[in-house]
Amino acid sequence: MATMMALRKTERKRGAELQEIPIPEIKSNEVLIKIEASSLCGTDVHIYEWDSWAQSRIKNVPYTVGHETTGTVVKAGSGVGRAKEGDIVSVETHIPCLHCKQCMTGQMHICHNLQILGVDRDGAFAEYLVVPDVVLWKNDTSISPEFLSIQEPLGNAVHATLIEPVHGKSVVILGDGPIGLFAVGVARAAGATKIFLTGMEPFRMDIGKKMGADILIDVTKENAVEIVKDATGGIGADVVIEMSGAPRAMTDGIAMLRRGGRYCFFGIYKDNLVPTPLNDIIFNGGTFYGINGRLMFDTWFTVSNLLSSKRLDVTPVVTHKMPLTDFAKAFEMMIETPKKVGKIVLFPDASMMNGR
Amino acid sequence: MATMMALRKTERKRGAELQEIPIPEIKSNEVLIKIEASSLCGTDVHIYEWDSWAQSRIKNVPYTVGHETTGTVVKAGSGVGRAKEGDIVSVETHIPCLHCKQCMTGQMHICHNLQILGVDRDGAFAEYLVVPDVVLWKNDTSISPEFLSIQEPLGNAVHATLIEPVHGKSVVILGDGPIGLFAVGVARAAGATKIFLTGMEPFRMDIGKKMGADILIDVTKENAVEIVKDATGGIGADVVIEMSGAPRAMTDGIAMLRRGGRYCFFGIYKDNLVPTPLNDIIFNGGTFYGINGRLMFDTWFTVSNLLSSKRLDVTPVVTHKMPLTDFAKAFEMMIETPKKVGKIVLFPDASMMNGR
Amino acid sequence: MATMMALRKTERKRGAELQEIPIPEIKSNEVLIKIEASSLCGTDVHIYEWDSWAQSRIKNVPYTVGHETTGTVVKAGSGVGRAKEGDIVSVETHIPCLHCKQCMTGQMHICHNLQILGVDRDGAFAEYLVVPDVVLWKNDTSISPEFLSIQEPLGNAVHATLIEPVHGKSVVILGDGPIGLFAVGVARAAGATKIFLTGMEPFRMDIGKKMGADILIDVTKENAVEIVKDATGGIGADVVIEMSGAPRAMTDGIAMLRRGGRYCFFGIYKDNLVPTPLNDIIFNGGTFYGINGRLMFDTWFTVSNLLSSKRLDVTPVVTHKMPLTDFAKAFEMMIETPKKVGKIVLFPDASMMNGR
Amino acid sequence: MATMMALRKTERKRGAELQEIPIPEIKSNEVLIKIEASSLCGTDVHIYEWDSWAQSRIKNVPYTVGHETTGTVVKAGSGVGRAKEGDIVSVETHIPCLHCKQCMTGQMHICHNLQILGVDRDGAFAEYLVVPDVVLWKNDTSISPEFLSIQEPLGNAVHATLIEPVHGKSVVILGDGPIGLFAVGVARAAGATKIFLTGMEPFRMDIGKKMGADILIDVTKENAVEIVKDATGGIGADVVIEMSGAPRAMTDGIAMLRRGGRYCFFGIYKDNLVPTPLNDIIFNGGTFYGINGRLMFDTWFTVSNLLSSKRLDVTPVVTHKMPLTDFAKAFEMMIETPKKVGKIVLFPDASMMNGR
Repeated sequence: MATMMALRKTERKRGAELQEIPIPEIKSNEVLIKIEASSLCGTDVHIYEWDSWAQSRIKNVPYTVGHETTGTVVKAGSGVGRAKEGDIVSVETHIPCLHCKQCMTGQMHICHNLQILGVDRDGAFAEYLVVPDVVLWKNDTSISPEFLSIQEPLGNAVHATLIEPVHGKSVVILGDGPIGLFAVGVARAAGATKIFLTGMEPFRMDIGKKMGADILIDVTKENAVEIVKDATGGIGADVVIEMSGAPRAMTDGIAMLRRGGRYCFFGIYKDNLVPTPLNDIIFNGGTFYGINGRLMFDTWFTVSNLLSSKRLDVTPVVTHKMPLTDFAKAFEMMIETPKKVGKIVLFPDASMMNGR
Repeated sequence: MATMMALRKTERKRGAELQEIPIPEIKSNEVLIKIEASSLCGTDVHIYEWDSWAQSRIKNVPYTVGHETTGTVVKAGSGVGRAKEGDIVSVETHIPCLHCKQCMTGQMHICHNLQILGVDRDGAFAEYLVVPDVVLWKNDTSISPEFLSIQEPLGNAVHATLIEPVHGKSVVILGDGPIGLFAVGVARAAGATKIFLTGMEPFRMDIGKKMGADILIDVTKENAVEIVKDATGGIGADVVIEMSGAPRAMTDGIAMLRRGGRYCFFGIYKDNLVPTPLNDIIFNGGTFYGINGRLMFDTWFTVSNLLSSKRLDVTPVVTHKMPLTDFAKAFEMMIETPKKVGKIVLFPDASMMNGR
Repeated sequence: MATMMALRKTERKRGAELQEIPIPEIKSNEVLIKIEASSLCGTDVHIYEWDSWAQSRIKNVPYTVGHETTGTVVKAGSGVGRAKEGDIVSVETHIPCLHCKQCMTGQMHICHNLQILGVDRDGAFAEYLVVPDVVLWKNDTSISPEFLSIQEPLGNAVHATLIEPVHGKSVVILGDGPIGLFAVGVARAAGATKIFLTGMEPFRMDIGKKMGADILIDVTKENAVEIVKDATGGIGADVVIEMSGAPRAMTDGIAMLRRGGRYCFFGIYKDNLVPTPLNDIIFNGGTFYGINGRLMFDTWFTVSNLLSSKRLDVTPVVTHKMPLTDFAKAFEMMIETPKKVGKIVLFPDASMMNGR
Repeated sequence: MATMMALRKTERKRGAELQEIPIPEIKSNEVLIKIEASSLCGTDVHIYEWDSWAQSRIKNVPYTVGHETTGTVVKAGSGVGRAKEGDIVSVETHIPCLHCKQCMTGQMHICHNLQILGVDRDGAFAEYLVVPDVVLWKNDTSISPEFLSIQEPLGNAVHATLIEPVHGKSVVILGDGPIGLFAVGVARAAGATKIFLTGMEPFRMDIGKKMGADILIDVTKENAVEIVKDATGGIGADVVIEMSGAPRAMTDGIAMLRRGGRYCFFGIYKDNLVPTPLNDIIFNGGTFYGINGRLMFDTWFTVSNLLSSKRLDVTPVVTHKMPLTDFAKAFEMMIETPKKVGKIVLFPDASMMNGR
């Protein structure tokens, strides 16, 4: 029986192990993908660290971690229509049931019975991956593997930023994590005319500058609400996108939003219940979105087209490439020096690190 | 100098007084209206009771209270285009500046420099009222005065309920106050196919039934989240409209909303900061609106057309008509027996109580 | 081998034959449905008459005609998720490829590689039907079979009428065919406050009245543009829905649309190229939709909920029920006396004509 | 009495005259503007040439021509709120009545009683101009006068191009006139990822290239439908914007639009009735807009922000600057060598040609 290398969560405690396990079998409507590159997400780090969220969320171990990925279809089951053997694909992390109300009305990314790749089923830090047809995205092969791999989190940034158009608007991105940095680039590519980025860490803010932020706000030293209001004639920003998960940023964000503006909740909070200025939200009269995942597959078209047209260059955010065997080093960097890291991409076959 | 009767907030304490004061003068772009009917709003009661909100919000006394109204234009200044002498009009409570960004982009109801009639300037519990041209709404005179007067709060219900269409959808109205009761009728008229109303008070729930609610939920005895989920195949309601201002209703509302649904925050909370399940909002992936006022004047067209076409009959909600001189009785009813009252309409000229 | 009765287009000429043929086999992702009721559409009549459209559009004979239907799933292939044996279902006529851009962005009803049931593959005037999982709609069994069968054309009316909300609006339906009559009821159920119906035939206009039209316009005697303008204060209707396929109705429709209004092209024209007042369209500044099919499956939720909630009663439009064996009589009625017919529903098992 | 120079249409025949006439008086709600720059539009040329459109459209002569402009407010009447003396402003050409349904629902740019500046009342090719408050746009003075003057036609391009977002989309601009060239730049700035421009004239196509077109199609030599289909995987473009007024371009545009795409009618046709493939529009299932003017003032915010942020540089399109006294030369260039001209800007005070 053919085997492969896979990064397994083997026990309900900190860590993960690279193991040799059988290459998985496909059923009808499924494909087997030979992975070229997979990138690390904060979710993977939570699972690695085995924090309280991971303890309650992960149901079964052992299983394979990872969900941001790209690779080549090497086997396609009967009924597969979106790709064929030899196609280079990425995959949507959200695996929908296809028969709930959301799945039947264009919202399958928030399916009532959603399964998450690399959380609820075997994921992408491995040499091979099996997924159903419905989550396949056929890649534009003019884009290099490390960028194909990060299309999924870039899709978060695109969905959050462009859920309503930003052309001609002032946009505040709260939080300088990788998705916030992507969001800056997305806002820039889509015609936002005044882009603010809040953060704390010079290394990341510098990336934000390269991605196209007009105004950087160091929240350890500066008053973000005042700066945004001053730069918008006193009325506040048209769009605020909360990507930090910090309650203070969230309330500041509401205070700096102009009446009738648009606000996105994206960053997850440590506790579900957060004191929120609801009366301010009411008097604001604006639109507030909860952002979960990406549109399947409207967002993927936008992501792919922005990258292949070079309207958006995410090079500054993708800071590290490593062989998959260096996974432990990658996780430790994310944990120990998060402020010095953008996205890290891992390659099962190290020879792919410089492209196909 | 000609004088009129007006209900004045004369001192920064509980109560109000009916006084004889000069009929106000108009400037260019203003009209003088002879009032036919004006209805009581919760805001008027706060001001009458002089609660903490009123103490901080009301800047200048003495002034005339009241803002839901209808009457006849008796004098029109130069530059007035929306009505002429003899026209029967209602007025928008939100008085916009006309030059801020919102005013210049179709959102004047949430103007950056908003003035509120009967709060920031003399209001409608009087024989005469002066307002600027821009807030005039020319009435359909086939509608009787008590219904013309309540178009403004009915407009709140229309704006909150129909900010996105409801046809074919399940809609939950949280709260059995007058605007919640209006919202039931609006949802019914606009094609919502399963309408839930939560409340506590049999008198009001009975009105809700008459307005078209399919399912009444007594929150003192029943579990609203369970009932809504059971009646929607386990996935939750398409639309939830929070009109109670109760934190518990708000969190229940989020729990009963299907993923990707629509939620409106309308009811004002006692405290601005309310513990809110923000992670649930994020994972829900839906759209959350702050509702303030009504669209000027899209909402008014809808209100007027629903009433004049008789698609919507608000008779069950308009429970009392009284002469303006009985104002004290009206306020005491609102304060002492709110659960037995829908809308109360006051008439400066009691002979109008049975129509023109 | 088990056989069934099916209405077959056997030759490339006028007519169709009821034949005994093998019950079709299912593949994975497909179901076999035992038909309860199937209704006649104008498309079926074109195919029966073998007019020039049918001659160029139909590629292969023999095949089974018909596409509006309801029945019971009697066999479900592997991978079928939307229904199981015993479920009563209807089916979407538009069979999508699932991998083109439209299929991947919520527009599968206008798939680039669309197949039409009863046109490009065997249809529903038969005892049994095979369709893929993706077109299944699980029915609300509180609705009677003749109404379940007409959900597909009712869905056309819902999609055309409610592509933007109609609450509080004036709506003109041009054309008194069955879908026009449905559209009147849909507009009424969804809160349109002034509904005009144009037509020529008293029998059908009378149905339009029952469906909720406020103003009937007999275009053989009356000037539709003038009537609509007069009834809308001179500015024209908010919404015009062209369901006649008559060039004169189309140009009248544009003339009676208020600036910035909404217009739907639904009725098919005899010739593709029609002289159209494009400068008037430009100066109008409104939104003009081409309407093809129904949203999959947003529209089906609306249709089903309107029927099951009884907000919409289509009884007046469903004028005839017959056994499938009477098909020839049904087609002749549609051809000879179209003005005396609404929808005709055919039952393979005549005992179902009075319900299950 | 103070006088000024103004370009007057004095007789109902070809031409126009620079005359000395009294500086106009303002009323309440009006301002007097000292003009810095005014640019030529095709409409001005029609009026100059006195073609059949102009003969039927222009009601009264003599009057002052021109409507694209910028200048300084030198006198403001009572009730003026959008600008004060000393402010540098541009003006909207569409002068709304403020009391029709469109004016009261955010569509005043398509007012039922619209007046057009420079057509229905005295325009901007003069030293001074009087307009009402409601059409004032306070300029960002970091933008130079020739670009402030062309904000009005640039607004046409913004409105047509961005009536729905274009980020990540393929966009075809049909026609290489100045507004088509602006539209290319707007699409580029707002994130369109594949931009096609069709045209006939190398001088203009070269400007289109500079504005950001990815694919230039010379319709005298190439098959536009095939090129667009080939470059979009055979399904057609997401967005087509018809800016040529040529029937052939219009039908080609419909043929190259993907199903469910978006199409804008902007270019005016010689004859109102144009043979149009309406059945193709119906089967396409997309959205078709008539484009008239610009949103007041959403579009102006976008225009101003795109220019001041330098996300959009329209330098290549503004090909000529001249003193107003050279008006005859400017008109002759537009008439004789239209293919060698982008926008021409005229300056009453020639010293302003190099900026304030």
